[in-house]
Amino acid sequence: MPVITLLSDFGSMYPAQMKGVILRINPDVHLIDITHDIPPQDVQAGAFVLMMAAAYYPKGTVHVAVVDPGVGTLRRSILVESQGQIFVGPDNGLLIPAAIRLSQDITVREITNRKLFLTVSSTFHGRDIFAPVAAHLSKGLSPSDVGKRIDDYIKLDFGVIKIDGYRITGKVIYMDDFGNIITNIPGEQILKLFNYGDMLTAANTGMPFVRTFADVAHRELLMLIGSHGYLEISVNSGSAVRRLRLQIEDEIQISRMNTGSR
Amino acid sequence: MPVITLLSDFGSMYPAQMKGVILRINPDVHLIDITHDIPPQDVQAGAFVLMMAAAYYPKGTVHVAVVDPGVGTLRRSILVESQGQIFVGPDNGLLIPAAIRLSQDITVREITNRKLFLTVSSTFHGRDIFAPVAAHLSKGLSPSDVGKRIDDYIKLDFGVIKIDGYRITGKVIYMDDFGNIITNIPGEQILKLFNYGDMLTAANTGMPFVRTFADVAHRELLMLIGSHGYLEISVNSGSAVRRLRLQIEDEIQISRMNTGSR
Amino acid sequence: MPVITLLSDFGSMYPAQMKGVILRINPDVHLIDITHDIPPQDVQAGAFVLMMAAAYYPKGTVHVAVVDPGVGTLRRSILVESQGQIFVGPDNGLLIPAAIRLSQDITVREITNRKLFLTVSSTFHGRDIFAPVAAHLSKGLSPSDVGKRIDDYIKLDFGVIKIDGYRITGKVIYMDDFGNIITNIPGEQILKLFNYGDMLTAANTGMPFVRTFADVAHRELLMLIGSHGYLEISVNSGSAVRRLRLQIEDEIQISRMNTGSR
Repeated sequence: MPVITLLSDFGSMYPAQMKGVILRINPDVHLIDITHDIPPQDVQAGAFVLMMAAAYYPKGTVHVAVVDPGVGTLRRSILVESQGQIFVGPDNGLLIPAAIRLSQDITVREITNRKLFLTVSSTFHGRDIFAPVAAHLSKGLSPSDVGKRIDDYIKLDFGVIKIDGYRITGKVIYMDDFGNIITNIPGEQILKLFNYGDMLTAANTGMPFVRTFADVAHRELLMLIGSHGYLEISVNSGSAVRRLRLQIEDEIQISRMNTGSR
Repeated sequence: MPVITLLSDFGSMYPAQMKGVILRINPDVHLIDITHDIPPQDVQAGAFVLMMAAAYYPKGTVHVAVVDPGVGTLRRSILVESQGQIFVGPDNGLLIPAAIRLSQDITVREITNRKLFLTVSSTFHGRDIFAPVAAHLSKGLSPSDVGKRIDDYIKLDFGVIKIDGYRITGKVIYMDDFGNIITNIPGEQILKLFNYGDMLTAANTGMPFVRTFADVAHRELLMLIGSHGYLEISVNSGSAVRRLRLQIEDEIQISRMNTGSR
Repeated sequence: MPVITLLSDFGSMYPAQMKGVILRINPDVHLIDITHDIPPQDVQAGAFVLMMAAAYYPKGTVHVAVVDPGVGTLRRSILVESQGQIFVGPDNGLLIPAAIRLSQDITVREITNRKLFLTVSSTFHGRDIFAPVAAHLSKGLSPSDVGKRIDDYIKLDFGVIKIDGYRITGKVIYMDDFGNIITNIPGEQILKLFNYGDMLTAANTGMPFVRTFADVAHRELLMLIGSHGYLEISVNSGSAVRRLRLQIEDEIQISRMNTGSR
């Protein structure tokens, strides 16, 4: 049975309409919610969550992702193929990091085949365009029957990090429901400069760089390489978001803590 | 594979018990959550969300809906057939708008066949009555084996609108997770009196009537015909609920804005 | 199609990664979320919800439960068999009440067969160990191929109650999303001492012991035997949690209300 995943900022109610549309076209499909709790209109957060999930799905999966502040405007609808998986959604960058992480070699098409659509509303392309297109793809429709290749799609990435001696500068790219703060600094970069057990600073706050939460006392701050492969700032059995009051996009400088000794 | 949907005000935990009951009786079924986040005991909100979803589901779908302040009292349990879909739940109006929207020609039965039930608790008929009945129906049990037809079921609708020259009076019937305010005023009524681009007033506040959110500047109020087909009051990339402080059932008067010119 | 359930304190994002891992190994499986909204690190709340759900699932179900403050430490990973169902998760007590409720006769194994794992991160064993092990079990892998039996696993229960004449002392073990307060006092114990309609006190507050919510007026406190079989304190169409400000683990004394007459 093929898999269709759904990701959006819709909260409840609207995803159920999309699922009905899909099941009418293809009743033999696994419907998996990645999440519908992306903060409203936060394309970057949606792109991050989709990227992290897609890497674990089987070939043939069709991902429908809708975080779409431009719905009903001239923004295009696209389909992206990468490593045997297909992504369907708005042309606003949302789908690109997930596709690129699977393979640098991606194919992007504009969705133009109106025969696949429901009557199109101005405000809910998730239901009227993306859901039926995904359902037809899950039944074997060729992507080339959906629309023509384009190369001028909107790109999105999570920024570059700067390394200056023993200081790495990156930024906050996501905060999860535990209150872990996820940066764009790859774990392998950290491991080139620092060792587990080192006292480091981030956001002007000292904390140890450890392997897992329970390596520090309850309610203590720590840094670790998270399950995403990026550096995270966390609190053991607590919320780093509440402790440090950082925001998405805030700059994060990591360096060795000045211990006063020289 | 047949589809069973679930809708309730249960939040987490209780729906999982219903799903176990269903899968024990029919392991070959799609289980789809419409939502379990209906505000507690809000039968009208549940009826609206069910109505909006059911229209998109395939024939043969069985919908189990439970918003049930009268559980354990003498209120009846009912089953409603409409256009090849079946609705199962309490006799308090919850199921009726969804069934009527599919077809005016509905059949309502009281659920009385106790052989289908689990041991019945006083507080969780979703698990003990509605889930097993739905599972048996999804396996092909005839509705006539569940109970006898009744005609004195509880009705529920979303009120009537009043049109007085160029003023339409309706009411708020739902607020979604984005903060969009959904009224009971059908889009086609608005289009008979006004044009896209008109400045209108609602709740004593002026705002343009447009096709989609991005037709106004960020954080600006607007009116549009939503994906449900009803007039909605929204804020582009923001929450109209937070801006206007309206409540469910509040009256909404729509008229052309008095611009001072005559 | 076999059933795998998922329970965690992950909120959104992380469960979708686990589902992808499972579907890659076994595409022919029902994936059912019990909940991902267990309060962070609250092993006891997770154990209660899992216990309540598992009793309704078919034989052959594999339950993956992850509330895991000790992830990445030396705490073991375990698998528990009981009455034809299998539970997979951390060795911290989380799985035990659910397994014991199905049958006193449980078998516990340490999960040690690394050939079944993904590359193991220090912080997300749900994805890297429990999900793939569950997927293989759902395809028929024998539990004995996962690891050896152990007897020194961590136990967890919901405490014992004390009965002293006509006074029963127990404690709060869970609060649901409606605001119902669930105690560890079995319904049959209450029925031995009191009758429906009696005025009782709990938390120094008088309230009637009734069959269902609607047996008292709107917004009134009540006690009933909940759908779990335990004594619950509730408010008709309201939240007892908000009214009484009790906490998990708070002691609850139930006795007949002193009416002043003697």
